[in-house]
Amino acid sequence: MHIAHKIGVRPERRQFLTACTFLAAGALLGAAGRARAAPASAGLADPGLIEDLVAANHILADQGVVDGYGHVSARHDKDPSRYLLARSVAPELVTAEDILEFDLDSNPVDARGRKLYLERFIHGEIYRVRPDVKAVVHHHSPAVIPFGVTGVPLRPVYHMSSFIGLGVPVFEIRDAGGMTDMLVRTPELGRALARTLGDKPAVLMRGHGAVVVGTSLPEAVGRSIYLQMNARLQAQAMALGGKITYLAPEEVQKLRGIGGYERAWELWKRKVSAR
Amino acid sequence: MHIAHKIGVRPERRQFLTACTFLAAGALLGAAGRARAAPASAGLADPGLIEDLVAANHILADQGVVDGYGHVSARHDKDPSRYLLARSVAPELVTAEDILEFDLDSNPVDARGRKLYLERFIHGEIYRVRPDVKAVVHHHSPAVIPFGVTGVPLRPVYHMSSFIGLGVPVFEIRDAGGMTDMLVRTPELGRALARTLGDKPAVLMRGHGAVVVGTSLPEAVGRSIYLQMNARLQAQAMALGGKITYLAPEEVQKLRGIGGYERAWELWKRKVSAR
Amino acid sequence: MHIAHKIGVRPERRQFLTACTFLAAGALLGAAGRARAAPASAGLADPGLIEDLVAANHILADQGVVDGYGHVSARHDKDPSRYLLARSVAPELVTAEDILEFDLDSNPVDARGRKLYLERFIHGEIYRVRPDVKAVVHHHSPAVIPFGVTGVPLRPVYHMSSFIGLGVPVFEIRDAGGMTDMLVRTPELGRALARTLGDKPAVLMRGHGAVVVGTSLPEAVGRSIYLQMNARLQAQAMALGGKITYLAPEEVQKLRGIGGYERAWELWKRKVSAR
Amino acid sequence: MHIAHKIGVRPERRQFLTACTFLAAGALLGAAGRARAAPASAGLADPGLIEDLVAANHILADQGVVDGYGHVSARHDKDPSRYLLARSVAPELVTAEDILEFDLDSNPVDARGRKLYLERFIHGEIYRVRPDVKAVVHHHSPAVIPFGVTGVPLRPVYHMSSFIGLGVPVFEIRDAGGMTDMLVRTPELGRALARTLGDKPAVLMRGHGAVVVGTSLPEAVGRSIYLQMNARLQAQAMALGGKITYLAPEEVQKLRGIGGYERAWELWKRKVSAR
Repeated sequence: MHIAHKIGVRPERRQFLTACTFLAAGALLGAAGRARAAPASAGLADPGLIEDLVAANHILADQGVVDGYGHVSARHDKDPSRYLLARSVAPELVTAEDILEFDLDSNPVDARGRKLYLERFIHGEIYRVRPDVKAVVHHHSPAVIPFGVTGVPLRPVYHMSSFIGLGVPVFEIRDAGGMTDMLVRTPELGRALARTLGDKPAVLMRGHGAVVVGTSLPEAVGRSIYLQMNARLQAQAMALGGKITYLAPEEVQKLRGIGGYERAWELWKRKVSAR
Repeated sequence: MHIAHKIGVRPERRQFLTACTFLAAGALLGAAGRARAAPASAGLADPGLIEDLVAANHILADQGVVDGYGHVSARHDKDPSRYLLARSVAPELVTAEDILEFDLDSNPVDARGRKLYLERFIHGEIYRVRPDVKAVVHHHSPAVIPFGVTGVPLRPVYHMSSFIGLGVPVFEIRDAGGMTDMLVRTPELGRALARTLGDKPAVLMRGHGAVVVGTSLPEAVGRSIYLQMNARLQAQAMALGGKITYLAPEEVQKLRGIGGYERAWELWKRKVSAR
Repeated sequence: MHIAHKIGVRPERRQFLTACTFLAAGALLGAAGRARAAPASAGLADPGLIEDLVAANHILADQGVVDGYGHVSARHDKDPSRYLLARSVAPELVTAEDILEFDLDSNPVDARGRKLYLERFIHGEIYRVRPDVKAVVHHHSPAVIPFGVTGVPLRPVYHMSSFIGLGVPVFEIRDAGGMTDMLVRTPELGRALARTLGDKPAVLMRGHGAVVVGTSLPEAVGRSIYLQMNARLQAQAMALGGKITYLAPEEVQKLRGIGGYERAWELWKRKVSAR
Repeated sequence: MHIAHKIGVRPERRQFLTACTFLAAGALLGAAGRARAAPASAGLADPGLIEDLVAANHILADQGVVDGYGHVSARHDKDPSRYLLARSVAPELVTAEDILEFDLDSNPVDARGRKLYLERFIHGEIYRVRPDVKAVVHHHSPAVIPFGVTGVPLRPVYHMSSFIGLGVPVFEIRDAGGMTDMLVRTPELGRALARTLGDKPAVLMRGHGAVVVGTSLPEAVGRSIYLQMNARLQAQAMALGGKITYLAPEEVQKLRGIGGYERAWELWKRKVSAR
């Protein structure tokens, strides 16, 4: 079992973890974990989880959150130190045969000769320090990018997007890696991104896109879709002029228990299965 | 027969009802009505009405007025104290089998074990105090939300949207319920919303969406579509700069008799039946 | 043969006709023509023209220029004092069986019991005073409406829309009819609209839509599509800030001979026939 | 073999070519080359190249980069002094049978009675002076045109569009030809456009569209799609207000080796082949 799991970053302790703790834990684990070359498999994942992961890829494309790029992963249901992610392919084309298993250092259990996403470290490093997270989406949603390149913060204008009120920081890769090709292509950059994310539901990446997390695939996908929607609505509201009434912190808290977009997930899934 | 019907809020008296009257009537009826647990059925509704209600769900999705959320209801043709609304499901997926019957307290006649829309009180409380209303749409149209969160009033810029000239108030749920999860999940909140609607064709809900009413399903659906269109056009006109010529009150009045979007309804219905 | 044709408003004399002449001619002809009840048919129209008119209806819907409303007509190929227009139905649903023949007073030769477009006078009154015009489109293109309600003139920013440089006036129905329901539902209002159009390719209707004319169906349809496109581009260019370089009058003149959107017409027609 | 190829404007010398050199070379070659009437064929092109060229036409239409107008070419794989381009037809309708072979003076080897694109000189004159270029796209992308008519420069806001950081100049046809019909319908205008392009990846055409080049069809198509995307994102970011962080020159350089949109090309191609 992987050390990240062993040290017991349990969900119930999440609220006590600060960005500093994330940093320290990530650094330690990264050093310990990267020596391994061929991680063992956690065994077969739940077929329903694989089906949902394939659907999540198709849904994100169908809803305009991803184009030819972006990726979505799920934590392995049999072992929290493993996650599932497609080989390097456009999300809309992903099939169950494309899904590979990775450890938290983002080494594949068996790559089967497939090309891997260069930025898979986004997923591994977030799963390592966020045990509450069961699904991670990385996307280039066009509505969101303008907020990442300006100083304008995303704020919740819409009840379906209330999670934005928990905070959506911006990751400036120059702070972590100086002048790069802007890709999160190393464990170090992945850890820096995870630190900026902290305990929040999403993080914008300047000039690049965003990462959204959730306690389930429907939640991570739903938050991606409504992050995009809020970005559109906020931009339109700002263009109208006038003073904007954002959701109050109390409203954001009261909406936390509302659930994970189940009704919409049923629709989104049906739409892509009907293609 | 339900007391709301008995006390004779007849259509012909609608013009005399003020927001204050709505308030008083709603409070009285709400108190009287909520004791019942298992309301009797008004009998089978007209199959054509059920067909139109299913079509209305699909049309609102096809025209981008609703996504996975939102709902549309029709008053029962056999009994004005009953209304028809789907079980909790995305509008695009609604079939005739999903349609349930409710009394004006929004108790189902027979839920058949189905999950109900939390916000069904929107429908019941409006039908209670607006006998002229035969159909109600609740939606989250993205074009409309920016007007609900800013101080900018929706005004009629387009002859197809002339009903906006009758007034489209904004419902601030904080005024009715303080800090909530923003859902109209109680009879009290439903009544507060109905009071803000008053005798108008539509009401915006801050940070949430809108409710649109009509004397028929085609009218409520058509108004929803052209509320959305006017919001887009008004935002674009404001962005162009220059002074906007809105419809004059006299033009709004002369357009009242123009009808209920019949020509478009035929098209909208054909488009969703061809899927 | 109709008097409008007899008095010889020949195409080659078009350039001498001023708005004043249009007014006088229209008034005279309108008075003379409106006495007739059952105009004679000009005989069967060219089947290719009917096919193109049906295609024009579908193309305008497919390209988002019309929704459930709007209409397109063609002058009869056998008699310039007759025109062809569908019965009152959404453009997307028009079939060859829906096409009716009208005289220039907009009386149907044989209505076959069908409901007629209330605003058919737009077509008749333009054909009467614009012998060069062989096709007329009335639409509510959303991109165009903001220009009609603000003081911001449409100007040519795009070479495919160069005809806008010939002038696109705005028709304010209040100037012609005072406070109305904004519909061009009488010959008088149709004549006023035709006067505002003058010798131009298009006219905006405040708070309503636009009318676009052409020497052929492909030209009138193509101009409708590129009027819409120019409106979008101009609004975007204005939003960017900076000084806009519009097409110069000389460029507009040099582009006049470029043709009638034939290459695009082939595509547009193929797209709707493949449905 | 064509003189342009013989004089050895070799890829490895590209970095030494300046805009002035382009001008001189173009003028010389143009004069030498235009005497020929019936250029010889370079023989059959690679069927895979033809297939990709047909796909490129369909992809550009599917992605909204072209409408009924615009065209895409590829340099012949057997002879760098020949290029492949469709007869005059809307890109969405192009089939393998429509592909013709041209020399760098844009004379067809065998027109087979087909009508030719008036603006084919764009392609020939760029291939003549840019030996690194293997594919050329001319399009009227709506998102891009506003930047061409204002003084606002396109700048890279998005890592997928990093090539914009290499420079995207604006071609003002008035500088080259005075008042024209704005079409690049002569070799002289084609050479002027190629001079403005210089060694850059793309050039905007004021009031008209853009030309995008690449070392392969996937690169030229991908750059066209992400030029459009960057234009949308930059306009949105500017509308939000605040200071925009563009890609730094070092980031642009580090992203140069990232490749030619292969993953997206697979998706784009699959989408059009599934139609």
